[in-house]
This record gives sequence, C-alpha cells and structure tokens, in this order.
Amino acid sequence: MTDRTIAEIGEAELIARFAERAIAPFPEVIVENGDDAAAFLPRNGLAVVTTTDALVEGVHFELYFSDPRSVGRKLVSVNLSDLAAMGAEPRYMLLSACLPRSTPLRVVEGIAEGVRSRCAEFRVHLFGGNVSRTSGPIVLSATLLGEIAPDRVMTRRGSVAGDAIWVTGSLGDARAGLELVRTGKRDEALTRALVDPTPRVAEGIGLAKSGLVHAACDLSDGLGRDLRRLLMPLGLGAEIDPRAVPISRALLASGLDPVTTAVEGGEDYELLFTAPIDRRDDLARALGSTALTLIGRVVDRPIFELVEAEGERAPLPGGFDHFAHVEDRR
Amino acid sequence: MTDRTIAEIGEAELIARFAERAIAPFPEVIVENGDDAAAFLPRNGLAVVTTTDALVEGVHFELYFSDPRSVGRKLVSVNLSDLAAMGAEPRYMLLSACLPRSTPLRVVEGIAEGVRSRCAEFRVHLFGGNVSRTSGPIVLSATLLGEIAPDRVMTRRGSVAGDAIWVTGSLGDARAGLELVRTGKRDEALTRALVDPTPRVAEGIGLAKSGLVHAACDLSDGLGRDLRRLLMPLGLGAEIDPRAVPISRALLASGLDPVTTAVEGGEDYELLFTAPIDRRDDLARALGSTALTLIGRVVDRPIFELVEAEGERAPLPGGFDHFAHVEDRR
Repeated sequence: MTDRTIAEIGEAELIARFAERAIAPFPEVIVENGDDAAAFLPRNGLAVVTTTDALVEGVHFELYFSDPRSVGRKLVSVNLSDLAAMGAEPRYMLLSACLPRSTPLRVVEGIAEGVRSRCAEFRVHLFGGNVSRTSGPIVLSATLLGEIAPDRVMTRRGSVAGDAIWVTGSLGDARAGLELVRTGKRDEALTRALVDPTPRVAEGIGLAKSGLVHAACDLSDGLGRDLRRLLMPLGLGAEIDPRAVPISRALLASGLDPVTTAVEGGEDYELLFTAPIDRRDDLARALGSTALTLIGRVVDRPIFELVEAEGERAPLPGGFDHFAHVEDRR
Repeated sequence: MTDRTIAEIGEAELIARFAERAIAPFPEVIVENGDDAAAFLPRNGLAVVTTTDALVEGVHFELYFSDPRSVGRKLVSVNLSDLAAMGAEPRYMLLSACLPRSTPLRVVEGIAEGVRSRCAEFRVHLFGGNVSRTSGPIVLSATLLGEIAPDRVMTRRGSVAGDAIWVTGSLGDARAGLELVRTGKRDEALTRALVDPTPRVAEGIGLAKSGLVHAACDLSDGLGRDLRRLLMPLGLGAEIDPRAVPISRALLASGLDPVTTAVEGGEDYELLFTAPIDRRDDLARALGSTALTLIGRVVDRPIFELVEAEGERAPLPGGFDHFAHVEDRR
C-alpha cells in the first residue's frame, strides 16, 4: 500500500489540515486564519512576548523514532518553553511549515494533530501561518505570542554574585533518550522526555509573579552551555555541586554517567534561574508540585566549575553548538 | 579560493551576523534579541497584526540568479506585503534561519545585510529569532508584527456585488522576470520585480485610514488566484476588463503575452482591493504617487471572467498551487 502524499491535495486543503478544529476563538482575536495576517487586541497594559523556534527533520527529529504527532507537539512545546522562561502566559501561535511534495498525508495529519493537541492543552490559539514546498527535509517553524505584566518579565540579565542557582524537574533525560535511541534501546520515560517534553509554563508564570527571580532561561542546550550564556555576559560564573544536580530514576538506571549526561544534555526544557538563597519556600510555592532544586551558586568571576564536597574542582562540561562542533553531536 | 562556511563559526557569532547594526531600538521594546524571547509594549488601543512567510532555496529563490542580499530583502518584503494588505504599520520582526553547514559565510552575510537594509527602510526592528542547522536547502522564515487601530483593519471579507476592483502598480513583471531568467535573458526592471519587489506599505496604511476599502489582499499568487480567494468564499465572482489590467512598458517589450502574464503571474506584491466605484479620487489620494487602476467589478455569482469590450467572455486564468499542480511551475 502506498501512502497518499500532499502532492495530491491543494495548498488550501493542506492549510485546513492545521487550522481545523481550533479551540474556541479568543474574544481578543479580530482577524483569524485565512486572511493576509492575523490580528488581536492585546489585553490592557500587558506586554507582548514573542519567540520563534524551528524543528528540522534530521536535526531535531527523525520520523523513524518520533511519531509525527509528537513532532507537532514538540514544536509547540519548545516555543512554549521560551515563553515560560520569561514568565509569559502563552496566547497565540503562527505556524510555518515547509514540506516536500513527497510528504505522506498521514505525516502532515499527525503533525497537525500534535500541534492542535498541545495548543489546546496550553490554551494557545493557532491563528495563522503558511505552508511552502521544499526539496529538502521538513522544516517546521512556529512563532508564539504571549502576554505578561511588563514589570514581571523575567530576563537573562539580573544575576548577582552570591545568588543561588536553581532548576526545575530533573536534567539529562532527553539526552539519555537520544543515546538509547542510537543504540536501539528504549525506555518509556527517557524516550518521552526526548520526543514529547513538557514545557514549564505554569511554573514560569508562577516564578514571574513571585517577583523573586533575578534571571531565568530554559534549558534547551544543556546546563553547561545555558548557564554560561546566562552568566558570562555579566562577567559572572558558577560553582555547581554535582551531587545536587537532579537526576531521574530512569537516567540512573540507564547505564550512562548521570552527572555528565545531566550537565551536557540538551533539550530538557526545564527552567534554570537565579534567586536569593533564603527564599526557597516562596520559590517552591511558586512552582506548585514541580520539583525545585538548588544546584549551586553564582560567583564573581567567569569560571564554571563542578565543586565536590571534598573541595575538588573540575570544569563544568559545555553543551553543544549547532554549527561549530567538529563532531556532529545531534 | 574556497569560501569560508558557517561551520567555522559558532551559533552565537552567526546570530550576531543578523542582529548587529540594528536600527535605533524602539522605546516600546522591553526585552531585546539575546533572551529567550523578545517583548514589547503595544501602543495604546492598537491591535497587533502578525504574519509569517518563508523563502525556500530552490522554490522561492535560487542563489544563481538572486544575490543573497536580495534574498534577505525579499524575505522582509513578502512579510511587509501581508501587513500592507491589512493596512498595518510594520514594527517588529523575528527571523528563523535554517542553514546547511556548508553555507558560505558570504551568503549568510549577504542575506543578513539584505534583511537589515529592508528593515531599516521600513523602520522595522529585528528583535529576535533563531538559527538552526539543516541538511537541506536554506529555509528563511520571518514573522512580522505591526500595529493598527482595530476599527481600521482591512480584511478579505466585506466585498459586495457591484464593488469596483482595483489594483496598485502594474502586474506580471515578476513573472516576466522569472521567464526571462529561465531563457537566459535579462531585463533590469523585470528582474528587479522578481528578486527585490516593493511592498506597498504606505499605500496599505493610506487605504486603511481612508476607511473606503471593503476588502483587500496582496497579489502574491497572481490576480487570477488571489481574486478567487478574495471573492469565492463570499459566493461572489468578478468580471475583469483585460484592456484595463495595468502592464508595465518592460512587460510589453518582453515578447510575452502581457495579459496572461499579468493575470497568471504571482509575486507582484501589489495590493488588490474592492471599494465603491465612485470614490476613485479619495482612493487615489490615499495611494499618493502610486498608480491606481480600476480593473473590473464584483458580480453576485462565483464566476471569474475576462470580459472584452465587444462582450466576448473568457475564463480568468487561475494562478498556481504550490502542491497540487502536476506541472511544476516555479
């Protein structure tokens, strides 16, 4: 049986695959899907927060281990994670899909179903976008728009020496999931962390509302790299306690080195933030039932180290770079 | 001499290529480039209008006939054109660039320079985005955000039978430019229409402010197709006078059939709109020095025809579809 492909349907019909069954439209939307652009009325006094992120077939996903629905969900999740890092409430989405004509219709329908399900869960309204033909791999690019009171926005600036460094959830599961896929093994929790991560939207909103956070970002490129990005521009560094880094049972059972995997691994989509050390209870309250872990402290020079209880120091591993690395790690 | 490629530089450095030399930041921007997301304060009472459009190498451009700078400019222009069709003032842009590691650095720098130059001309602030690796063709996706008074937004709805149908500028030049490129010929004006089109931003804003327009869209897919998209959902059709369709001297001199090229040709990025026939002077005033042409009228049944002075009727040619056409026309 051969798959039907999108070459058999028109552009309008293809767009309808994504747009159909949208959640109940928001009263603030004044122009919907199907016009030259979409339009909304921002809520009174709120700032608009916006981000764009892409998933590329062969780089960010492979259809042989991610089902299309998960790809669609992850596209929304990675963008939600960026808004979560700012503390914004997600509201609207635009989708740009570049698809080869040979793309099976079931793949597009799966992606669209995943996008819609994730949008519905987080009350995001997909209200515009475009589809284009491409000769190459599938490229899905989403733009998310959210809102937040302007004086509550969390940014990457604002850390000071002496701040405590905190993370949500546990680290390294997505990386472990990727390693397992490569060796043909499979673990439910680790695979899920890789193909269908959970963005910390409510947690980000809670932290922003608490007003306690000095700086925040999401962990998309690994603790080692994201921590450097957060602190190096300020001339600051970090001492991380390797025993404090939160590790899941699944990662512990995987046979991989847990701390290296947790520190180097990307795509965790947990939140990393700095805040005063004496506000643990308030921070925990802001996060609800999500785990909060103190993993280290900010220091006043741009040095990034793992510091053992015995005082032994080692450089904090670094994460990856999409373009510069000689060894292709993704 | 071998080109340096982007594989030699880091992701951060690559992003800096796009972000550097931004125009003076807007006071409404509260979080800039370099954070998880960008944020701005919408101006009081205005709606936010947003659109996303992509340019794919091999589909929308070929680097053997479009220089990289023009590709960057066109990426901004096609998105500006969508905002123009709504009458919105463009304000902010996000850029998502998917690039193979083998991309020459000069290509990326050219694209970035083109993006920045077009943004500067239209006072658009590029304040966020991302770069990703891809194995395939270059994919550039931009999201543009603009603002407009909510009661002034022009949409595709609102045409009524008896409305006059108008277009700005002249039609078919981009298509003629493409035909010439394919046959190895070259004409300055036609090539420019193809590789570096001018979005009708001030014209769109002027038309929206006039309050006279019943419905509007931009001509990205050709008059035949865009007119159907504008009117068919309302159960309406159009009679177009082929002698009235505005044709440039360059197209007349090209040897191509001018009316067919003008009606079928896509990527003109002129504005197509409906308005009462007796308001020509007010409409012309709203457009400033840009040509305004009455090309036909809206009829009360979904039939699209070219109607000659002698009363002879022919179907209006239809434009193209990215996915469905058997013959690959782009």
